Amino acid sequence: MLQTIEWTGSAARLLDQTKLPAETVFVEITDEKQMHDAIRRLVVRGAPAIGVAAAFGVYLAVRDFRGDGTLLSFTSRLNEACDYLATARPTAVNLFWAIGKMRRAARDAGRDARSLDDNLTIDLVKARLLSAAQQMLDDDTRVCRAIGEHGVKLLQELGALKPGAETPLLTHCNAGGLATVQYGTALAPVYVGAERGLKFHVFADETRPLLQGSRITAYELKENGIPVTVICDSMAATVMKQGKVSAVLVGTDRVAANGDVANKIGTLGVAVLAKHFGVPFVVAAPTSSIDLSLASGEQIPIEQRDGREVSEGLGRQTAPADVEIYNPAFDVTPADLVTAIVTENGVVRAPYEEGLRKVVSA
Amino acid sequence: MLQTIEWTGSAARLLDQTKLPAETVFVEITDEKQMHDAIRRLVVRGAPAIGVAAAFGVYLAVRDFRGDGTLLSFTSRLNEACDYLATARPTAVNLFWAIGKMRRAARDAGRDARSLDDNLTIDLVKARLLSAAQQMLDDDTRVCRAIGEHGVKLLQELGALKPGAETPLLTHCNAGGLATVQYGTALAPVYVGAERGLKFHVFADETRPLLQGSRITAYELKENGIPVTVICDSMAATVMKQGKVSAVLVGTDRVAANGDVANKIGTLGVAVLAKHFGVPFVVAAPTSSIDLSLASGEQIPIEQRDGREVSEGLGRQTAPADVEIYNPAFDVTPADLVTAIVTENGVVRAPYEEGLRKVVSA
Repeated sequence: MLQTIEWTGSAARLLDQTKLPAETVFVEITDEKQMHDAIRRLVVRGAPAIGVAAAFGVYLAVRDFRGDGTLLSFTSRLNEACDYLATARPTAVNLFWAIGKMRRAARDAGRDARSLDDNLTIDLVKARLLSAAQQMLDDDTRVCRAIGEHGVKLLQELGALKPGAETPLLTHCNAGGLATVQYGTALAPVYVGAERGLKFHVFADETRPLLQGSRITAYELKENGIPVTVICDSMAATVMKQGKVSAVLVGTDRVAANGDVANKIGTLGVAVLAKHFGVPFVVAAPTSSIDLSLASGEQIPIEQRDGREVSEGLGRQTAPADVEIYNPAFDVTPADLVTAIVTENGVVRAPYEEGLRKVVSA
Repeated sequence: MLQTIEWTGSAARLLDQTKLPAETVFVEITDEKQMHDAIRRLVVRGAPAIGVAAAFGVYLAVRDFRGDGTLLSFTSRLNEACDYLATARPTAVNLFWAIGKMRRAARDAGRDARSLDDNLTIDLVKARLLSAAQQMLDDDTRVCRAIGEHGVKLLQELGALKPGAETPLLTHCNAGGLATVQYGTALAPVYVGAERGLKFHVFADETRPLLQGSRITAYELKENGIPVTVICDSMAATVMKQGKVSAVLVGTDRVAANGDVANKIGTLGVAVLAKHFGVPFVVAAPTSSIDLSLASGEQIPIEQRDGREVSEGLGRQTAPADVEIYNPAFDVTPADLVTAIVTENGVVRAPYEEGLRKVVSA
């Protein structure tokens, strides 16, 4: 399985997802500006992967920094880098979660180094930052596998698995291995289930405007031998009406305390369709995507992106010049349309408030 | 206002809609093979316009035909051309309706010419065929204006008009002037209302895969001075949730006797969303789009198109090579999701069966 992020020993190596499926190209990121740009341009995307990438960005920002040799100047540089990387994208909470973890790793290292001089302290903090980022990288794979295990069990409980036949699922955007380090969130149950001999067929919404579904989800499923059919977002209603979908599985960029879920634009529409056609709508979320500080989805900041992603993003001008375009990158699905939220610490169902608190503190 | 189809005196002049919005190019069609190709490739599209185009196709097929000079050989040629043109696209009933009208025009002409010799009869039939096609062209504009009048009244009755402010509407695909000869069906209320000083703001779903919304609807609204915002199909849920849509207006390719409505793929999804968010869902249909011979929408044949329209239609390969793609061109919205059907002979509301019969025979 392709790995989206690797640490080479001297750089963070990212699979350039803007080039998929035509080319499989890797870029080596050696400073925080490059990482900010890679996150902003969606070279690396998917909430969990963005978090890990940002963590390496924090380390890269200070790796070669000495400043005036004082801990004060180092800390100031570190904070600056953290603040800067946090501006790369606004919606996925994993970005802030990962940066927060890096800040805490630095603080803890500083505390442990109390008796050392500033230079040695700085070295220790740097080492701890690198190891914290590497730990996040490793944890992500473990977390995704756990989501996969819980997800398969949930599909079984929901009666969505078709024993001996292909279980037809529908997903929107990419919450697969390429949105994480490996395995993915929404697609983890597919990969884990396939390892155990279960069969799946995934309808991949192409996911306008940036086509993460047709470019990335279809690509990774195909590479991993899972049958996949690409559809336009506008065809999801038809395949559900035809009874072709046992369950919808999607990822999320942020879950509010009440179970409202922000995810790629179009997810809300899929959730409404799923409810209308009686199809379970399942959200896969590492607990790092759960933001208990927000009471509801109304408070989740929604990234607005350049309208040219809609009118020119595909190589050809597809709308009149200067026409007004509305291009929110995410939408919020209210909790009452969500059948269940699958985390690495178990499955949460309505009412979400208490269950989400439990899995976060587990 | 641009005219999609004109008769030059020697050819049918079509606006090549595959080139919009980048280029405004016209093509002159002089035989039935060119017309078949133009309909199939969507040079001319939109159910009403397809009907008129096919009518001229029938005339062009026999215009220079003499055969062996007998009425028998002429009639056989005419029937062949009608059968052939009917294979251009399967879903829009207007195609068959128009061809049926041409067959009847020929039959009536033949009857009127009973005492003439074959050569003179053939000349008379040809003249009548041309005039029948021209009549359909003229009728279409009149029909669309009448739909506009009834549509404005309906919007008022539904409480959807915002007096003194822009009434925000949402449409899918293009059922505007460019889907008809002029004015359009779904957009006719907008144009007729605007002539009377009403203000509108239209959200145009881009309408994957062929982007008739962003390429054509946005283009014609902009040309005609109506404020328009292009959105991806996946964003319709969000604008409805934000309360930004007073009503959805769409066209149709075929209405079954029970009020089920076939229209561009994605329409069903929009209808489900409209119901969920409490937005009226209005279908505009000339009576030539109503097919009382079909009891329900299940019987409407749905055109399946090449998957490459999805994966390559935009100038860039956007899905892995050889991936399975499902590309139905239309879907069927069940009558219970339809608030009203606006025809040139008045507005029909549920239960549809009787109302549709009335407007068809009016």
